[in-house]
Amino acid sequence: MHLYTSTIPSGNAYKVELLLAHLKIQYETTSLNILSTPSETRKPEFLTINPNGRIPVLVLDDGTPLAESNAILFYLAEETPYLPSTKLGRAHVLQWLFFEQYSHEPYIAVWKFCTYWGGFGSRSEDEIAKLKTRGQDALDIMEKHLEGKTFLADEMFSIADIALYAYTSAAEAIGFSVGENVKKWLKRVEEREGHVRINKDPTGKCPL
Amino acid sequence: MHLYTSTIPSGNAYKVELLLAHLKIQYETTSLNILSTPSETRKPEFLTINPNGRIPVLVLDDGTPLAESNAILFYLAEETPYLPSTKLGRAHVLQWLFFEQYSHEPYIAVWKFCTYWGGFGSRSEDEIAKLKTRGQDALDIMEKHLEGKTFLADEMFSIADIALYAYTSAAEAIGFSVGENVKKWLKRVEEREGHVRINKDPTGKCPL
Repeated sequence: MHLYTSTIPSGNAYKVELLLAHLKIQYETTSLNILSTPSETRKPEFLTINPNGRIPVLVLDDGTPLAESNAILFYLAEETPYLPSTKLGRAHVLQWLFFEQYSHEPYIAVWKFCTYWGGFGSRSEDEIAKLKTRGQDALDIMEKHLEGKTFLADEMFSIADIALYAYTSAAEAIGFSVGENVKKWLKRVEEREGHVRINKDPTGKCPL
Repeated sequence: MHLYTSTIPSGNAYKVELLLAHLKIQYETTSLNILSTPSETRKPEFLTINPNGRIPVLVLDDGTPLAESNAILFYLAEETPYLPSTKLGRAHVLQWLFFEQYSHEPYIAVWKFCTYWGGFGSRSEDEIAKLKTRGQDALDIMEKHLEGKTFLADEMFSIADIALYAYTSAAEAIGFSVGENVKKWLKRVEEREGHVRINKDPTGKCPL
């Protein structure tokens, strides 16, 4: 398999790398520069792989490209211990995956990107405040949900935890308030055998 | 089953209603007022059902609430003709479901809401321009993808089509440019036996 990722750390690509590490699947990578103008993900050669111009993309051994980080996670996790074996369990996992892409990533990942690389320059004060409030709301929902629970879905370590771990693990360092339940959950994810860290930022701007 | 929806038409709730109609599943509804302050979806009694304070929520016959429209679609579609039977087919469907929630709905659904109910008031010009550009980008990606294809994923009518139909069907009326491939695809979705329209807006503000 071949994973298209970015030169600077991407939580969305990291999710896939973390699951591939747990599954002990070997893969090659191509790292694209998303800070160039235009981004290397918007160049014609990459748009033939993902017309939406985003990483990660996982190219399967037969050449099929799969886009959307959480769709890739689901594909890789089917029939493995990282996805529940019941229909309701899978629905719970998908609930968290869609929560991540709709209510969490657009605020926390964007805040991380602006903090370390992009700057908040062209955004209005209202827009910046909305990023912070909604990101915090997402973390607060996780905090309440994790009360008395070990993992996000069905009391098992699944791709729901892998997907949410990626950007939640950076949240405190970029100024969000992270509660005790979430902190303990982050630690439980990190202590899993086979856990790997996100790749280092070669520009040195991001310490995470 | 019991579906929590909103008094004004919600594309996210409509997706679920459209699939339930195709599956010929009977259900009851509760319609919440999302235009009140606070929205009825943010009141304590609803937050116990969905801590993220959003509709739709489908409550299963045993009382289990499921949130996130596309997770609900996947749950209902498993082992039915509306979800491919192969792992790769399901991954393709999920690709479109995540595309819808990340690259399509946040622009086209928000534009629709601002047009008919919320207004663009507190948004900066940059933010409004970004909504329009990104919404159009999503439609253009669909237009290219649908060239020579009947449906979005694996040449079969699936929950990918149901999910994308909901807001794409409103796009032209709210000022987006919709290409011929997308128009023909919309018509194909509408011509499926069992198709139902979105509920009418009781405020009369939205003609769709």
